[in-house]
Formats: sequence, structure tokens, C-alpha cells
Amino acid sequence: MVPKMLKFSRMLHSSSRNHLLEVLYARDFSTATNNNYSAKGYTSDRIFAPYSVYKGKAAFSLSPCLPTFTKLDSGALVVDRHGSIMMSFMPAIGERKYDWEKRQIFALSATEVGSLIAIGPQDSCEFFHDPSMKSSNAGQVRKSLSIKPHSNGYFVSLSVVNSVLNTKDNFSVPVTTAEFAVMKTACSFALPHIMGWDRLTNQQSSGTVSFQPKMNSQILDLEWEK
Amino acid sequence: MVPKMLKFSRMLHSSSRNHLLEVLYARDFSTATNNNYSAKGYTSDRIFAPYSVYKGKAAFSLSPCLPTFTKLDSGALVVDRHGSIMMSFMPAIGERKYDWEKRQIFALSATEVGSLIAIGPQDSCEFFHDPSMKSSNAGQVRKSLSIKPHSNGYFVSLSVVNSVLNTKDNFSVPVTTAEFAVMKTACSFALPHIMGWDRLTNQQSSGTVSFQPKMNSQILDLEWEK
Amino acid sequence: MVPKMLKFSRMLHSSSRNHLLEVLYARDFSTATNNNYSAKGYTSDRIFAPYSVYKGKAAFSLSPCLPTFTKLDSGALVVDRHGSIMMSFMPAIGERKYDWEKRQIFALSATEVGSLIAIGPQDSCEFFHDPSMKSSNAGQVRKSLSIKPHSNGYFVSLSVVNSVLNTKDNFSVPVTTAEFAVMKTACSFALPHIMGWDRLTNQQSSGTVSFQPKMNSQILDLEWEK
Amino acid sequence: MVPKMLKFSRMLHSSSRNHLLEVLYARDFSTATNNNYSAKGYTSDRIFAPYSVYKGKAAFSLSPCLPTFTKLDSGALVVDRHGSIMMSFMPAIGERKYDWEKRQIFALSATEVGSLIAIGPQDSCEFFHDPSMKSSNAGQVRKSLSIKPHSNGYFVSLSVVNSVLNTKDNFSVPVTTAEFAVMKTACSFALPHIMGWDRLTNQQSSGTVSFQPKMNSQILDLEWEK
Repeated sequence: MVPKMLKFSRMLHSSSRNHLLEVLYARDFSTATNNNYSAKGYTSDRIFAPYSVYKGKAAFSLSPCLPTFTKLDSGALVVDRHGSIMMSFMPAIGERKYDWEKRQIFALSATEVGSLIAIGPQDSCEFFHDPSMKSSNAGQVRKSLSIKPHSNGYFVSLSVVNSVLNTKDNFSVPVTTAEFAVMKTACSFALPHIMGWDRLTNQQSSGTVSFQPKMNSQILDLEWEK
Repeated sequence: MVPKMLKFSRMLHSSSRNHLLEVLYARDFSTATNNNYSAKGYTSDRIFAPYSVYKGKAAFSLSPCLPTFTKLDSGALVVDRHGSIMMSFMPAIGERKYDWEKRQIFALSATEVGSLIAIGPQDSCEFFHDPSMKSSNAGQVRKSLSIKPHSNGYFVSLSVVNSVLNTKDNFSVPVTTAEFAVMKTACSFALPHIMGWDRLTNQQSSGTVSFQPKMNSQILDLEWEK
Repeated sequence: MVPKMLKFSRMLHSSSRNHLLEVLYARDFSTATNNNYSAKGYTSDRIFAPYSVYKGKAAFSLSPCLPTFTKLDSGALVVDRHGSIMMSFMPAIGERKYDWEKRQIFALSATEVGSLIAIGPQDSCEFFHDPSMKSSNAGQVRKSLSIKPHSNGYFVSLSVVNSVLNTKDNFSVPVTTAEFAVMKTACSFALPHIMGWDRLTNQQSSGTVSFQPKMNSQILDLEWEK
Repeated sequence: MVPKMLKFSRMLHSSSRNHLLEVLYARDFSTATNNNYSAKGYTSDRIFAPYSVYKGKAAFSLSPCLPTFTKLDSGALVVDRHGSIMMSFMPAIGERKYDWEKRQIFALSATEVGSLIAIGPQDSCEFFHDPSMKSSNAGQVRKSLSIKPHSNGYFVSLSVVNSVLNTKDNFSVPVTTAEFAVMKTACSFALPHIMGWDRLTNQQSSGTVSFQPKMNSQILDLEWEK
């Protein structure tokens, strides 16, 4: 269902952005949740409400990251960095204990979220990210996220191969139909927000009457003809 | 469709939270709707807009309960208590009269709401809560909520067995396809809110330009290339 | 799919409410859109953005009506009058001219909106309202709204029989698949709002930290275990 | 699935409006994103967050345009110009370079968005706009947007024939299942906003208790009978 083209378009267009997102997210989260750290400024108003799925060998959580905007000289705002749904995987290190220090993260783009939302009961999909894409370090770290059907839901798996550190991390979390329904519903809710469309639709809410010239009074007459 | 695993994961992770939620909700509601009570402080701004299904032998209503947040020393907010959809069941005690004093409540977690949303026309699901889970009173009260298909919709049933009081309460409410569509649509709407994701997506709405360094100006150039 | 039960439950529970809604809506709308009327107070901030379907013999429009709330002595708000989706039908009186004075209105309850949302390509449904239900005038006016499939969508029809005036009004509007998709999407969006659930989910948005005692710090510890 | 009727109803009712929208949008966008232009007033708070699909021969982007309202003497607001989803197509002029100057735009009405949302895996649909409809220039420019299934998604194509300039522009962009899922989800989110229904549902949010007389206290009693 999800064509091969997706793989390549992601590698071409967004891998470097995803990597930076992942680095920023990890830093912010560590800072924000470290009680000994006297936070100044921008991290102080961060909100964390991940949706987490804890299973025997690993856990993962989902959390939306909003896009950022740049103000042009004209005063208009355009999307600078696109938003994403951040997935964080952690290995289990005991009964209901997970090792946050060994987490690996993967930032789902809007189109990858579209894949997740559109997936049918027997479909699978896989996404590939190279954090160093288009740099001299390309290919050093390769991440692959897959969603594959099983009898009562899906396996959500992340593989991270680091050829410099010579490490390979694998996480596989069985997700029930109910948990996947939460993921689909929450991601459908979040998608317009990570695209920035909530900003577009709110932009005229405070004003009342628009600036455009009245042009179709005859159409209005038609509609409210008495 | 909904695997057995769900039952156990709920019992392990959230029963004690659900119980406390149920106690708090019942207290708040009684307080807020008691005209003789001179409310001070926190209950004064509560809003009640349950979706209610009244049938011959019993009635139930659904109402979302939002999550609560804890502020860390860093200034960041993390979810403290997860939200839920609170279900309240009441027995009929006459024609269109229901006994609020004999109500029993059941707090659907996000994942249980996912079950309800994902249920197909011929599927059924069942959830088990033990309000005293992980305490010395474990097993004294057992609650079970089931949703089972019938010809024109579903039976939504709650069973509460209290082995201390030696009581057993059963409620069964036939729900039409139309009423269940309202439940699904309303629960899909409420789900991101009980997860706290509405807070995440609103957090940057008041600001305009993000704090992150501008990093992908060449990508912006590409996208608006002339 | 939509059981007979629906018909009776609507007649028992909401007809009188629907009638009052319909009267209020008609009065408000006439007032608000009458340029010669110097509106004072409550009608001055009304917004009208109906979704209209104009066809050869008749037209109809849909517009959401929000619920109203009553403040109890405790300070809590409870839903007073439930919201609805108001449907207004008008007969055609010439090419693209419709007679607003001869309009008839029908207020869809939340559960009737659920029926509309859940309807399949080959399903039909019908709702009956008696504006004078439970009064001495019961049966004098009978309204029936039906949605029936045709080759490329649905026929949406309203019949109003007034046995006092000895009149019978019939409107039938063919609706394309695309127009019905707009109706479904818009009604799904509006449903939580006419139920008042948007108020519930917004109520804690302005505050940050909840009033409940911290109770599950050990659960928080578990989730962010390092 | 999408009937022929749609084609004609669009041509009758909204082509002139769409044309004006398209002109305004193009002007606003050029102004807002031109760094050399010292914008005054209305364009300064524009937000641009298009969803873009870049492929080998062409690209397109989607962006919601909100409706505008007119204030009547009574103080009520009615929709003046309907909103739309604006589609902008650009031809490729090199590897990952697109010619913005040669863009063509097409404004999807609410009902056309309904078509897009309701389209099944094997369905296709086509919309026709004549920007000069109902003027002496009718027929000079004809635009046609089609969505047609292929093996892994859809082809989204725009054809613009200008008989005055004697030009014919064709754009065809293959869209994956995942990308189309983003389009459907984003358009479903945007639809109530381009219809103006978000304004309707927000209008009473700031107030608390409604102005209508209390009428159904006996119904409230019933619902909270003790």
C-alpha cells in the first residue's frame, strides 16, 4: 500500500530536519524533567503528555512536536521547520522498568503520519531516516521504523544501526488494536497541528469582518432571498 | 479483536488511579449539583454536560474527565493523573425515573476508549477494574464493563461485585446504532483531550516565531524557489 | 440499521424541546437578518454560516445551535437546553429563487445527528417530531424528516402536516455523495459542540496545575524511571 | 460515485467567486512573501503553512482560505465569501526546482472538498471552473481538476486552457496513499473552518449562561432525579 517512493522522498527531503528535531527534543526533554536543573527561559513552559505503550521487552511513547514559523519582512509568517510526531523507544531493564538513557527517537513527518493513519488491518509500512543525510557523515547512522500486522494488532519496531559506534539497537513493541486506535485517533488530531493548519484556521478568528471588498452581494441576496 | 492482554495491563497499571478518579468524580458531582451546599473554591467552575442514554431498566451517561498536570522545578508540566471518560450507571425505579444514589461509575482509560472507538459491528469487548488493586483490599470490589453486539446496536453492561458488602449490581442498557455513533464521535473528540494532547498543540499558539535556531533556510529556499 | 426504537425515544424525550428550539431559532434569525430592525442586546452577536444545498424544487440549510447552560447555586454549570443541528427547508419559487417565508425547520438532536453520521450508502432513516408533544395540542402538527438512498447520494425530505391549518408541506432535496460528505464531516465536527463537550474539554485549559492531591507519584516515577 | 450534477452546480454557483478568490490569493501570497515589499496593513498577519507534494514533473500545495463575514445592521454576521482549499500547481524546471511564476491555482469549494474526502480507492472525480462565468468573458479560460486512482494512490491533475492567450497548461502529480491520507485528514479538519462553523461553535464559549428563558426545568429534574 505504501509505495517505495515514500522511502526515497523522505531520505531526500527531510532526514536532516528530522535529525535536528530529534536532537533538540532529547535535549529539551532531559532539561525540562531534570529537577536539579534551574531552567531559564524557553524550556520553562514545555508540556509533556506522551502516549506510552509499555510492554515486556520495550516501551515507546508518542508526542506531537509543533512546527516553527519564520516572520518575513512583509510581516507574514511561513513555516520554517515542519512539525512531527516524536516516537521515543526504551528497552526494558526489569519488571516495569525501562532505561530512558538508552532511548532512541524517530520523528514521524506529516506524510509518515498519513501512512500510519491510512494503514489497514493487514498492511505494513516502513520508514527510513538517515540523520546525516546530505552531509559527509551520510550513512553512518541508519534508522528504520516498521509497523507490521500480527494477530491482535501490530508490531511497532525501531532499528538503529550506528556504523561509527558499531552498535545496533532493536526495539519491538506489540501494540493491541485498542492501543493502535488511540494512536490513529491522536495522530489524526495532531496532524493539522504539526502541519501548522491550526494556525491558519485561527488567524481570522479574533477579527470579525474581513478586509476584502464586498463583491458578491447578489449572491448573498440570492441565498437570503425572501 | 481486543486481546486478553488489555485486561491484565489495565489491572496492573491503572486500577488504583481509576478508583481514585471515580471517588473524586462522585464527590465533585454531588457537591456541584447540590443546591444547598455553599461551594467554595474549586468546584465552583465545574461544567456538567453528560451524554445520557435512558432506557427501561437502567441509564448511563458519559462525561470526559481531563488529565491533571504537575509542574516540575524546571517549569515544565508533565501529566500527573491521566484523564478518562467517566461512565455513570443508574437503575430505573419507575417510568423515566432513575436512582442516582445507587449509581455505579467506571472510568474508561485512553486505551479503553480506543477499544470503544475501534469496535466493529459484530465485535465485543470487556474491561475489568479492581479499585483496590495493589492494596491489601485487592479483590474486594470487582467491576466489569462489557460492550456486546445485538441486532440494532450494542448492549452496554456494568457489573459491580462487592465481596465485603456482599452486593452485586448489574446494569444493562441497550444502545442503538445512532446512540453508539454519538458515543464514538464524542469519545474520538474527547480522546486527545483526556490524553492532554490539546494542551501540547496549544502551547505555542500564543507565540509566533520559535526559539530554535534557523537551520534549514536552504530548504525554505527550495520550497519557495522562484 | 436505525431501529424503530429511535422514533419513540425521540417522541418521548425531546419533541417539546425541539419545538421551542425551532421557534427561538426562527425568531432570532428573522431578527438578526432584518436590516430595518435596530437590534439591542442578545441578537447582536449572532453568526450565520449555514451549509446550504440548493436544488430545482427546494433547498435546505444546516446550522449548528449550541446548548445553553444553567448556573447552579454551587457555581457549577449544567446543560439546560441541549444543542441541535437546525435544518431549514425552503420551496423553490423560480429559477434559483427560494421562498424563505414558507420555510419549515427541523432540529436534529445529538442522537439524530448520530444517525446521520452512521448512515451507510444503502441505509435510510426517518425521524418524527411532534412540536406539541405532551401538551393539549399533541398531534396537531406532525413533522417527519427522512434520508433515503438514491443512485448518486440521498434524498433528504421533510413533511409537515398541520391538522389545524389543514396544510401539508413537502420538501425533497436530492443530495450528492459529495454534499452528503460535507454534511457528515460538518455534523461530526459540530456534534461535541452541540453536546457541550467542547466546554468540558476547555474548562481546565486556562489553569495549569490541578487541584487534586498528588497521589500517584510512584506511578510518575515508574514512567520516567531512569 | 460523484455525479455529473456536481459539475454543473459548480459552474452555476461558484465559478465567479472562485476566480476572485484565486486572484486575491495569488496577490496576497506574492506580497506577503516578497521580502523587498514593505507591507502595510492587512497582509502583515498572514500565515502560510501549505501542505506540498513535490514530484518529478510538477508540484502542488494545499492551503485553507477562511470565509469572510459581513456585519448586518442588526449586528449579526453572515458569511459573505465562502472559504475554500486553495490548490497551487507549479511545473518542475530542474531537479527539485519548481517555477512559482508559472503556477496555476484552483480553489476547492466546501462541496468539492466533500468529494475529495469521500473518494474511495477506485473512484475518480473531476471539477470544472470557469473564472469568467456569467460575464462577457465566459468560456475564455477553462480549468479542470481531476483526481484519478493509480496503483499506489492517485494522480492529481490540473488543466488550464486559455483561449485568449492560446495557452494550455497541464500539471499531473502522482500522490501516494500516505500523502492522500494527509490531504483527506487535513481537508476534513479544515472543512468546518472554511464553512465558518468554527465561528458558530465558538460564539457562546466566552459567555456562560444563555439568554433563553428556563423552560425545561422538569426535564433537568428528570435527568438528575435523586
